[in-house]
Parts: sequence; structure tokens; C-alpha cells
Amino acid sequence: MKIAVDAMGGDFGPEVIIPASLAFLEETPEANIILLGQEDLLRQELLRHGASNHGRLQVQHAPQVVGMDEAPSQALRGKRNSSMRLGIDLIKTGAADALVSAGNTGALMAMGKVILRTIPGIDRPAIATTMPTRQGKTLMLDLGANVDCDAHHLYQFAIMGDVFARLVMNLPRPSIGLLNIGEEEIKGNETVKEAAVLLRGSSLNFHGNVEGSDIYRGTTDVVVCDGFVGNVALKVSEGLAQMIRTELKEAYQASWYGRLTAVLSLPVLRRFRDRLDHRRYNGATLLGLNGIIIKSHGNADAFAFAQAIRVAAAEVRHHLIANIAQEVQVLLAEHQETTA
Amino acid sequence: MKIAVDAMGGDFGPEVIIPASLAFLEETPEANIILLGQEDLLRQELLRHGASNHGRLQVQHAPQVVGMDEAPSQALRGKRNSSMRLGIDLIKTGAADALVSAGNTGALMAMGKVILRTIPGIDRPAIATTMPTRQGKTLMLDLGANVDCDAHHLYQFAIMGDVFARLVMNLPRPSIGLLNIGEEEIKGNETVKEAAVLLRGSSLNFHGNVEGSDIYRGTTDVVVCDGFVGNVALKVSEGLAQMIRTELKEAYQASWYGRLTAVLSLPVLRRFRDRLDHRRYNGATLLGLNGIIIKSHGNADAFAFAQAIRVAAAEVRHHLIANIAQEVQVLLAEHQETTA
Repeated sequence: MKIAVDAMGGDFGPEVIIPASLAFLEETPEANIILLGQEDLLRQELLRHGASNHGRLQVQHAPQVVGMDEAPSQALRGKRNSSMRLGIDLIKTGAADALVSAGNTGALMAMGKVILRTIPGIDRPAIATTMPTRQGKTLMLDLGANVDCDAHHLYQFAIMGDVFARLVMNLPRPSIGLLNIGEEEIKGNETVKEAAVLLRGSSLNFHGNVEGSDIYRGTTDVVVCDGFVGNVALKVSEGLAQMIRTELKEAYQASWYGRLTAVLSLPVLRRFRDRLDHRRYNGATLLGLNGIIIKSHGNADAFAFAQAIRVAAAEVRHHLIANIAQEVQVLLAEHQETTA
Repeated sequence: MKIAVDAMGGDFGPEVIIPASLAFLEETPEANIILLGQEDLLRQELLRHGASNHGRLQVQHAPQVVGMDEAPSQALRGKRNSSMRLGIDLIKTGAADALVSAGNTGALMAMGKVILRTIPGIDRPAIATTMPTRQGKTLMLDLGANVDCDAHHLYQFAIMGDVFARLVMNLPRPSIGLLNIGEEEIKGNETVKEAAVLLRGSSLNFHGNVEGSDIYRGTTDVVVCDGFVGNVALKVSEGLAQMIRTELKEAYQASWYGRLTAVLSLPVLRRFRDRLDHRRYNGATLLGLNGIIIKSHGNADAFAFAQAIRVAAAEVRHHLIANIAQEVQVLLAEHQETTA
């Protein structure tokens, strides 16, 4: 297994990405990594980690870097020699099985679409990631790639989510929920209602509509929504979790008594923090492309970035792309039979 | 000030709503309450609280009850003698200044629209509520009344949010944020882009786009979004907060040491819990109707329901409806001047 790693992306670049890559190689003896970036920078950092001659780590020079705020169209035209673009080229030629990048999401998606194209039968790729729930994990998609989706796009997201959950999350028959709104007057917009009809008519394990609160309850294994709603849900969660962490900290620091009990509570608070540690959920898949691209959070540390590489490795191991391509064909055929 | 209270709505009915009403009357000497519901039930409950002859509390018999799952259209036609409907009639005739109900949101909104109509210049009412932030509170709307909004609807929500924040939240020049998605490829859908143009051209204090994470950061005083997105944001927050509470509890209960430190940490944990207590934020306004209707959470306890009555009282005190009507006229005139 060969994984390309864009060493220039994210807030910290090689400083974080190289130790993460080395940690991943350490635990995965069958894996090779191709690091892409400015060669002297990468060599320096490898030297610092005493890994200048790692047998399963290769450096490929990329003179350009895609900026975090660069317009995707501009990156696409002007950054043909960037670490991001050369990484995607490696997938295209078969020299790598996957790419992991903490860089500009829009540019990554745009380049992925143009160079790799989508899986036949999939119109638009989606951004997918697992979220922690009371029971374990829920796969959610789309998290921001598509702001205006029609019912067929949501249906395709469900197909991809099903394959991902079966292979990568090891669930024999994952339940699929369609994100909708609750008790209020009109239950959902037209797109969601239409998507529900498509899903109900398919052989997928469609649970029905779910509400925002069902995500963390783990009501279904997969939650499907359009990218606008998914992105808001994700960011609202980040904001609330951060506020709660800060409030909890302040409550403990407000008095000498609080500070004392905080010290005593440390093992408990650590256990709590670890359980919900967002770094453990790092690594979103650009699902639907004809190749595996994993997006790491821009501010990932080495622990979090290694997690994103693990997601890539799991998808390579389970031949995710070929399996999605196959299921899409089966379900599309089934759909045509039903409507014929 | 006369506030009508639907005593039959919600999960607990008079059992919770009557003590809440009595507590509110106790702290608000200038207020009167008209309790609507099945008279013998209400009389019984009042007797239990030794308040059979409260001078500022009046009972009005309503033989029907709107069911929590009843279709709004059905409630509208068939429940003309329900506590909810008679309460709205009281606003219409001027016999009450506001209605508070924990009943079926859809039915409440449908009846409100038909009986009270909307404020001139407002096409659609929105559901608005305050959310806790690091700094204080943010007003968010719409939370589920409108699943398909155009740019003009969002603009009208912003106008109403501005007036609410100035009068009820006492902010001299509230900043308005438009909920959008972040760094991803296409920044927002067409509706949001168009709404931003309208807001930028107005005399409102428009901050620009905000992301989901900005809600709890308190980046702006008001956050405007369509009802689908707003409802998901609200429910995701409820689900996540509940999961975090449960996880924290379990972390403390996992060992005898944890249980011991939990006891020692009680004052701190209480302080933390109080700060984020969702009951303190109970009471959503059906904003844009030609009358004040406050929706309480269905599972509100007496503490939370009293909070919803307080929201109604604050809106009555500040002549919210008349003030919105006036600002709508000013901003619409301004808008016509600009486009003329």
C-alpha cells in the first residue's frame, strides 16, 4: 500500500505531518508513504527525526504550495506543481493508492474532480466523516461539498454511505437516516421528501427521517444531508463543544476549592476528554471521486493527522472505490427495473 | 398586562403550567394571567396550590385540546374551542396582550397566521429564540417555521431580529450575522448570497456571513438562517449537549475514585450546569405575527415554563409588535429609495 501525503498543507506543515507519517509507518508494516513538498524542508525535518533513510518513506519534490485561501479555480490552473496536485496525479497514474492532505478543501475537491473524475453513476462527490455517538460512531455526509443538492444527489450519498459503513466501519447492514426537521409545520423541504421516496424504494436499509439530535444519539449508522446543512451541523457542534470545554474549565478555576477538586478530578476529566476528543475523528473522505482522498483538519496535530492517514489506509485495504462503483451499478439497475 | 396561558399544552399540562404561572404572578405585580383549559382540571390544580381565589388569575374554560401530533390544518378546522385557539382569539380581540403555549408548534403557528395575520411588510413569521454564548446571548431565527426561504424572507427575519435585540435584549445597535458555510468550494447557496446583498444595502448593522461555530462564540447578536438549517442547528446542539452531560456523568461514575471526586466537585459542576441550563433559554417567539405568541418547549418544567412567560412579558412591555411594524415600514421605504 502506497499513500501519498501532502506535507505542505494545514496550519503546521511538515512539522506535524512528518512525525505523523513516521508514527503511521511504525504501526503499519505493509505501508509506504510518498511525502510531497519542498524537498529541502522535508529532508531537514526528516533529519530532525532521525529518519533520513527510512526504507518505506520516499520524498517527492513539489515546488508549489496551494494557499489555504486560494480560489479553487486558480489553484487548478496555476498550481500544477503543487504538493496537492502532484499527489492527486500519483493516484491518477496508479503510483499511489490514496492522498492525505490538510490543505485547502475547495482546491482539493476541485483538483480531485478534474483529475480523477467521479465514480460512474455518482454525479457529485460528498465530504464524509464519522462523528462520535453514545453507541459508537455515525457516518455523516455531505459536510460542505454541495450547497444545492437534489434528491438524486442525496440518494447517491446514501449509497456511498452504505458501502463505507459496511466496509470501513464493519457494519453488516448499516441503517441510513435522512436529516430532516421535526415536529414543525411542514416536515422537510421538497428535496428531502423526494429523496425519502427514492430511498424507501431501494434495497438500502433506510430508517427514515432523523432530526439533528439523532446524530449524537446514534439513531442510525449513516446520516445523509446536503452540504449546507451538514456543514452548519458540524460547525455548530465544534462551537458548542468548545464553549462547554471553556465553561467547564472556568467553573473549576473560579475558586481555590474548584481548583483543588479539578486536580483531584484530573483522571476523570481526562477520561471524559479522551472519549470526545475530536482528534480521534480526524480525516474526512472526499467520497465519490475515482480515487481515495482524505482531508485532514487544517489545525490537526501529529496525533490527529496520523488518524487521517489511518482512514486512508482502511479505505485502501477495503477497496472502497471499486466496491462503491459496484454497488452504484447494482442499485442503479434495481432503480431502473422499478421505474421501468 | 394580561397574558393568556394555554394550560393544556406540553407533556405535563396544568401540573407544570399552573405553578409556573403562580411563580410569575408572584414576581410581576403588574401582570394578570388568563388560564385556558378544562375548567375543573384547572380549578383542582389551583386548589392544590392554595390559589383558588388569586386576584390576578382568571380561568377560561376551553373544552378542546390540540394534540401534540395533530396536523395543523386539522387543528385549525376542528379545534375552534381548544385552549390554544381561544388564547389566540383573546389576543385578536385585545382581551390579552400575549399567549404562552407549550403545545403543537405547527398548529400554534397555523392558527396564529390565520387569526392574527402577519405584521404588514412581513411575509412569513419565524421562530426565534436566544442561545447561550461565551459573551451572553445570541438571538437566532428561523428555527423551523419556514423550510424554503428566499432572500427577502431572510432580510425580513433580520429586520425583526434587529428590533427584538434592541428592545428585549437591550442592545443599542445589534450586529446581524447571516448563517453560511465556511471555507468550502462554493461559499453559500444563491439565496444566502442574495440576502447578503439586501442586508449590505440596508441601514442594519450587518456583520456579514457567520459560520455554525460563530453562534456559540457570540460573534454577532443576531443570527439569521432558514428554518431547515436553524432547526437542525438547534437539534444538533440539544443532542450534543445531552451526550456530553451523559459522558461527563459516566466518567465520574466509572470508579469509586470518580464518584468520590464527583461529590467533592458538586459545587463546581452545579455552577457549570446552571450556566448552560437550557431551561433558562426556554420560550421561543413566533416572530412576525400581528400579536405576541411564545412557544415553550413541550417538556418544560415549572422553572422553564415561567421563563417562557417572562419572555412574553418582556415583549409586551417593549411593545415589540408596534416597533417591528414601524421598523419594517422605515426599512422598506429605504429599500425602495435605493432601488428607485
